Amino acid sequence: MEIREKIGIRAKEAEREIERFLPKEEGYAGTLYRAMNYSVRAGGKRLRPILMASCHRLLGGDGEHLGAAMAAIEMIHTYSLVHDDLPAMDTDLLRRGKPTTHAAYGEAMAILAGDGLLNHAFTILGRELLSCDPSSMKNVARVIAILSEKAGIDGMIGGQTVDVESEKTGSTITKEKLDYIYEKKTGCLLEAAMMCGGALAGAGEEKIQLLGRIGEKIGLAFQIQDDILDVVGNQEILGKPIGSDEKNQKATYVTYEGLEKAASDVLCLTQEAGELLQQLDSEDPKSREEAVFLQELFSYLTRRDH
Amino acid sequence: MEIREKIGIRAKEAEREIERFLPKEEGYAGTLYRAMNYSVRAGGKRLRPILMASCHRLLGGDGEHLGAAMAAIEMIHTYSLVHDDLPAMDTDLLRRGKPTTHAAYGEAMAILAGDGLLNHAFTILGRELLSCDPSSMKNVARVIAILSEKAGIDGMIGGQTVDVESEKTGSTITKEKLDYIYEKKTGCLLEAAMMCGGALAGAGEEKIQLLGRIGEKIGLAFQIQDDILDVVGNQEILGKPIGSDEKNQKATYVTYEGLEKAASDVLCLTQEAGELLQQLDSEDPKSREEAVFLQELFSYLTRRDH
Repeated sequence: MEIREKIGIRAKEAEREIERFLPKEEGYAGTLYRAMNYSVRAGGKRLRPILMASCHRLLGGDGEHLGAAMAAIEMIHTYSLVHDDLPAMDTDLLRRGKPTTHAAYGEAMAILAGDGLLNHAFTILGRELLSCDPSSMKNVARVIAILSEKAGIDGMIGGQTVDVESEKTGSTITKEKLDYIYEKKTGCLLEAAMMCGGALAGAGEEKIQLLGRIGEKIGLAFQIQDDILDVVGNQEILGKPIGSDEKNQKATYVTYEGLEKAASDVLCLTQEAGELLQQLDSEDPKSREEAVFLQELFSYLTRRDH
Repeated sequence: MEIREKIGIRAKEAEREIERFLPKEEGYAGTLYRAMNYSVRAGGKRLRPILMASCHRLLGGDGEHLGAAMAAIEMIHTYSLVHDDLPAMDTDLLRRGKPTTHAAYGEAMAILAGDGLLNHAFTILGRELLSCDPSSMKNVARVIAILSEKAGIDGMIGGQTVDVESEKTGSTITKEKLDYIYEKKTGCLLEAAMMCGGALAGAGEEKIQLLGRIGEKIGLAFQIQDDILDVVGNQEILGKPIGSDEKNQKATYVTYEGLEKAASDVLCLTQEAGELLQQLDSEDPKSREEAVFLQELFSYLTRRDH
């Protein structure tokens, strides 16, 4: 089976899990729930929940509490996009070929839907925590701790802040600051995905940290690839306007390193991630299958065209 | 000692606790941290952490994990104000006599500071959860569950959604819908404050639910009093423009019930809350002191002029 097909199947699996945790679209606040569900269902690769589930199985997890954590991380990822697209931020009207949340539901509802998705991620995990038996409570507690740190003010939101500020000032951003943005804005949540998968499998601190380092490399590779696609991508396949970084006078990895170096860095980072991954290998056939999948996924990410 | 003075002392105590959990204003994302801290330090009654700490002591709590939970709920309350004041929502430029966060830091930073405060509340609680010994983990877990539910899409955010929608359409809002807004938008977080205080004291489910019912009544009374003040308040004492509800064509409790009935309902609800409170009374002197304080606080809320 081709990796694209595998990813497609796993994305559908992830979506089935996520659906279980979406709010019913009824009651006085129905518009909020519709705007949240619209945002989540708008598509996307579901990369974070896929990574989480795969790392979970890689480390011998039995799937306990996994669905909730998959839904939570996808909601956090989605809220960040919804707020990022707002007129006060990136002013994007199109994402994944569809109207962005504020384009479809108005600004106020997009702000609230974003708040709702972020908050609901922790509601889901809070419910899970209360329904835990004492033995697995520690694992869910770690998921809450990891996810809130990595999505938080010294993680994703920190990266988003520096990104927005750099964009607004239009001044040339230092390479150091650019690295910060890439590490935090995209890297942190991919790290969290992998770490939480491990945490729910009851992995020790050392293995969880190793997963984080792998996620960091993949996150950086993924982000650089995004920059490359913004320059050379095809708008129809991409589902969003290309050249937006240039239009916004945004310095990217490509600005600093050039297209060729950027492409080879993506390859290199992906390879390093793959090498670290081998340290987590086990003899178990299910675990082995996941190791193969992750390797394929990593190298697929370096060749993706959308 | 007068109740105003007692509240002032406890507000200062609360602020000392909250300060411990505010981010340091350094690093690339310094503006985010400054905008967050500006929003939290802008003042306010600190009613939620005060209620939480008092209910905690009422039920014999020893203060473990209390500071973190006080900081978390105040951050969530603050984020809701920061987003509520945005141009896409209420367009308020002044709150508590100071420029609102978006007026001081711009819209993008206000959105991010709000996201940051909401997320950071759970980061704080997540850290607390990981540092727990097994005996108190259950209590912190309950705080996360209660707070995320009550602040969430079927709680505060739900109420805010219906409030914003009603305002935008300008149509006459039904009394039923108005009750929903009051219960959810303001009530839920006051309920959470009292319930979390009890949960951290290791109270049983029945007592926690009773605290919630008290919070519900006080929350409604508080909100009606806000409406009354918007009609008859003094702008200088209030620190914000009065008549804003009328200007925004906003139906309030006063619109439906008239000033006199509204004022007597505030009194009545406060009395009911006080009666329920007596069911939680104990012989312990410290607990007794808190019961007296809460009674005084409740009746003070019916007479406040700001």
